[in-house]
Amino acid sequence: MNDYKLIAMIPARMGSRRIPKKNIRYMLDKPLIQYPIDLALQNGSFAEVWVNTESAPLGHACEKLGARFHQRPPELSTDKATNRDFTYEFLKKHECDYVVMVNPTSPVLRPETLEGFVRFLKENDYDSIMSVVSYKAEAFFGDTLVNFTGEDKIPSEKLEPVETVVWALTAWKRESFIRMQESGRCPIFGGKLGRFAIPKDEAADLDTEEDWNIAQAALLARREEAFAAPRYMELDE
Amino acid sequence: MNDYKLIAMIPARMGSRRIPKKNIRYMLDKPLIQYPIDLALQNGSFAEVWVNTESAPLGHACEKLGARFHQRPPELSTDKATNRDFTYEFLKKHECDYVVMVNPTSPVLRPETLEGFVRFLKENDYDSIMSVVSYKAEAFFGDTLVNFTGEDKIPSEKLEPVETVVWALTAWKRESFIRMQESGRCPIFGGKLGRFAIPKDEAADLDTEEDWNIAQAALLARREEAFAAPRYMELDE
Repeated sequence: MNDYKLIAMIPARMGSRRIPKKNIRYMLDKPLIQYPIDLALQNGSFAEVWVNTESAPLGHACEKLGARFHQRPPELSTDKATNRDFTYEFLKKHECDYVVMVNPTSPVLRPETLEGFVRFLKENDYDSIMSVVSYKAEAFFGDTLVNFTGEDKIPSEKLEPVETVVWALTAWKRESFIRMQESGRCPIFGGKLGRFAIPKDEAADLDTEEDWNIAQAALLARREEAFAAPRYMELDE
Repeated sequence: MNDYKLIAMIPARMGSRRIPKKNIRYMLDKPLIQYPIDLALQNGSFAEVWVNTESAPLGHACEKLGARFHQRPPELSTDKATNRDFTYEFLKKHECDYVVMVNPTSPVLRPETLEGFVRFLKENDYDSIMSVVSYKAEAFFGDTLVNFTGEDKIPSEKLEPVETVVWALTAWKRESFIRMQESGRCPIFGGKLGRFAIPKDEAADLDTEEDWNIAQAALLARREEAFAAPRYMELDE
């Protein structure tokens, strides 16, 4: 395993669009922003855990939760600001080998998933690593059949999976990222690209109120395990 | 809209492998098998709503819930039995224009989704229709980039989606299905193939105990709406 210096970056804006103020909204007993902070701090692999936000009040609140506060310029906090631009601004100011972006929109991420991601990072030499969800299901791209012929039904466990990127966890090699950005290339998927599959139920997005409720329900289900012992319908012989 | 005769078929085995006896297990206040029965009966488009099972006790219990009981032969109820074989056996015995397979492993399906599926069926002339989930996310098939180039990060709402088949709802034209099966071709994806996108949160599978808990939690979240009014973290100025 490589002895990389890793830092965590948790991007947060106060001006979330579809779910207002979602980063400070409580999901069960913690505000949303506390989930990635706790996750990254508990992991123990990060030399520093940063919240990257334009908001000083939010930044200071995160400091109380144990994170450091990187204040990005206001122009990098609009709906138009891109991931590559705010990450570049962040990386120029913080030395490391890799930055791992831990997204607050994935409160259902498990500690062991982040551990696996970090291990995968350290065992390899990628320029960028995306978390993906792997689907063993027949996939279409428009009318094109991606991973099946349609001539027969293959048991789903035998299908070659299709993987979709989820922005739960992303890692970039600092030096490559800066070099690509400064030469006008997009560093997001740049260089040698690794994929790390995370469990489907940890890939929740938080785009809508319903997503919020489902994530909250999933956390609740996990805590209470099976709610109760299974009960069955009675059948006559 | 075409005036097709539609029948619903709900496949159910007593010998479910990974979650034992899942069809008769209670999810919240109803046994799992009752979800597709209620959904299909409430829809009102089906001339008949059948449960297709090898088990007479289960079949009779489903009759009490308002469904009809199609008893399939025991050799079509093993782990090895294929969808095409048990559907063929069913279709040979029941006249219709189309059969809609409503899968008990999708208790989170909403009535309006089934309504949309039936409308899509009636407005078209497909031989087979699959429910799919549409992912507006960068997709990989092995190392192949399916719907993006990696040269830039496209906002996800502008990505061409990748769609994966979920076996929540499937429809087949009876005549085409029987003809293909009898000529040795696989009818599952056969003929003119339609795709109907359903919401991601209705595509739950029930492969594991955790899937079960999540589906149960999602149903609960839907009933209780937001659990409570949103609460927010207090920030200092």
